[in-house]
Amino acid sequence: MKRRKFLKGAAAGGVAAAAATVSAPAISQGIKQLKMVTTWPAKFPGLGTGAERLAQRIGTMSGGKLQIKVYGGGELVPPFQSFDAVSQGKAEMSHSVSYYWQGKSPAFNFFAAVPYGFTADEHYAWMLWGDGTKLWTELCDQFGVVPFMRASTGVQMGGWYRKEMTSLDDFKGLKFRMPGLGGEVLRKLGATVVNLPGGEIFPALQAGTIDGTEWVGPFNDLAFGFYKVAKFYYWPGFHEPNTTGEVLVNKKVWNGLSKEHQEIIRVAVQAESTLEFAEFNYKSADALDVLLNKHGVQLRNFSDDMLRAFYKASEEVVAEVGNKDPFTKKVYESFISARKKLAGWSALGEQGYLNARSLSLKP
Amino acid sequence: MKRRKFLKGAAAGGVAAAAATVSAPAISQGIKQLKMVTTWPAKFPGLGTGAERLAQRIGTMSGGKLQIKVYGGGELVPPFQSFDAVSQGKAEMSHSVSYYWQGKSPAFNFFAAVPYGFTADEHYAWMLWGDGTKLWTELCDQFGVVPFMRASTGVQMGGWYRKEMTSLDDFKGLKFRMPGLGGEVLRKLGATVVNLPGGEIFPALQAGTIDGTEWVGPFNDLAFGFYKVAKFYYWPGFHEPNTTGEVLVNKKVWNGLSKEHQEIIRVAVQAESTLEFAEFNYKSADALDVLLNKHGVQLRNFSDDMLRAFYKASEEVVAEVGNKDPFTKKVYESFISARKKLAGWSALGEQGYLNARSLSLKP
Repeated sequence: MKRRKFLKGAAAGGVAAAAATVSAPAISQGIKQLKMVTTWPAKFPGLGTGAERLAQRIGTMSGGKLQIKVYGGGELVPPFQSFDAVSQGKAEMSHSVSYYWQGKSPAFNFFAAVPYGFTADEHYAWMLWGDGTKLWTELCDQFGVVPFMRASTGVQMGGWYRKEMTSLDDFKGLKFRMPGLGGEVLRKLGATVVNLPGGEIFPALQAGTIDGTEWVGPFNDLAFGFYKVAKFYYWPGFHEPNTTGEVLVNKKVWNGLSKEHQEIIRVAVQAESTLEFAEFNYKSADALDVLLNKHGVQLRNFSDDMLRAFYKASEEVVAEVGNKDPFTKKVYESFISARKKLAGWSALGEQGYLNARSLSLKP
Repeated sequence: MKRRKFLKGAAAGGVAAAAATVSAPAISQGIKQLKMVTTWPAKFPGLGTGAERLAQRIGTMSGGKLQIKVYGGGELVPPFQSFDAVSQGKAEMSHSVSYYWQGKSPAFNFFAAVPYGFTADEHYAWMLWGDGTKLWTELCDQFGVVPFMRASTGVQMGGWYRKEMTSLDDFKGLKFRMPGLGGEVLRKLGATVVNLPGGEIFPALQAGTIDGTEWVGPFNDLAFGFYKVAKFYYWPGFHEPNTTGEVLVNKKVWNGLSKEHQEIIRVAVQAESTLEFAEFNYKSADALDVLLNKHGVQLRNFSDDMLRAFYKASEEVVAEVGNKDPFTKKVYESFISARKKLAGWSALGEQGYLNARSLSLKP
């Protein structure tokens, strides 16, 4: 997803002083006003609009007693201070993705996405019925925050390339924008990996300063217009196969909520796992249609050789991250064991069915 | 899924007279007591336990003001009268699957599952962001009920076979238990399709009265012990690739609820789309491990020839159903167009990624 630099750029301008106080009349009516900071620009399609919808639903369900005000990245605190803001009580809640906090612990990567990790449905299974949420809650507890799993973007795309990639050698010296663990993987294959703020990607691609970039998937990529300067759109995105979001709540605030309000927040965030993920799927299907049939985008899939090399490098990168400290190792081991089991089921279910259907149904 | 006969059998005994009245003290405290009938035995793993959890969550979120009492199939009305019970106001809500009501309109099939239809995530996308829910609501309105999409079971398995299937000819005369549209497909291929109540399947398989049966997937199949009498477990289940559930609410009751309580029900049911589906995935992965490594089950996948023949027959069966009346035709056309688009995206995303991963990660 990699909005990091993009958002830092977008938010550099003004950190507005937001109304952080709760009014006396509100208190007398038993109304709780909570601030929710986000790591995306206000009303950013899918993610920002999802934050607004979540706030609205919580408000409605609580009969107006839980009022959540959403702040775009930079409006109350800079986007990448939102974890600290919740931890320190400057904001009561945040709406973000866990891998942004990997500087605090490498374990945070596993609660969002790692290269060649879970699909969205596998991730949901591990988080909700396996050890995922238990381990995550234990980790977040050290920082005084309580985590809740939000929606996944689904499998991301492999990115936009100015030239066709014909062999693994083509990655050597390739100037490609891909932050995070996926970037580490490409670096192992000889690429020159760069990070650029969102607003600088298009001109860099156009000028040939970079040879390609990844972003999210068709829904979010279409708006950026990358197709105008890089015709080859590669799949699949091995580097972020689910990218699942989070809502964090300050622990003291959480413990001060009634059982009723706790359940409203818990269930509303969980409903987003369905609703927002479905939005990414539906709108990506539509956007893909536009990219292919209106803008003449050329789809290419990575060759089996490339995919095997990505896998080998990914396993090395993820193992390195997973062995950095004892707690992260515990998370890594749970991930590896759940991935093996869930991949076994996916092979017969989801994957088996999709392959069976595509023998006959040609998109 | 096909619990029809099984449940009819299970429920034949006693339709208990349930307390249908709302107590005077409850009314004075603003408490609403709603009865939710289901089409499964009380506390049936996954589906019945999901109904209980839903009721509990709605109760907690409403601070005890919305009290939902769950009735197993047959406790208040027989399982397959639950739609009518909600329509006529004998019960306020039901927890079921839409294709059970195909006798009222063939269009109901499309809101649950049809052979070679959507995966769970594609179904959620069509229902929540495409025309699915709009069309379904229009259909249900004629019966005075309001529908909400619940969880999917995910892709089901192809079923248990006593013998290996080596060619399409093996389906000729095969005595196989598969109700619904999937059964129609096998019939087209020459099978003798039978329906049996759940409790009669195991003895029939053991005695050789039938050559095989489908049920749901590893999680629900393990408990039935089919592996003891039919060693070959086929995949994938082309006949029910998502099987998504529903909650129905009586329309007058719905209109009488506050905005707050309406939103609590809407969001709680949507959260189940994540939670219960994740349960099926997680527990199926575990159960598959037990079936393979403890019970020596032999996995077999249908050959490409078989899968192509299933597809051809499925398309005929579904088109026949989809052209039965003008409203159903509208639903069928929306389904066909959304399937094409969503399958195009799945091919690059979910399917593309799963195939890439399995080049290297062997379950």
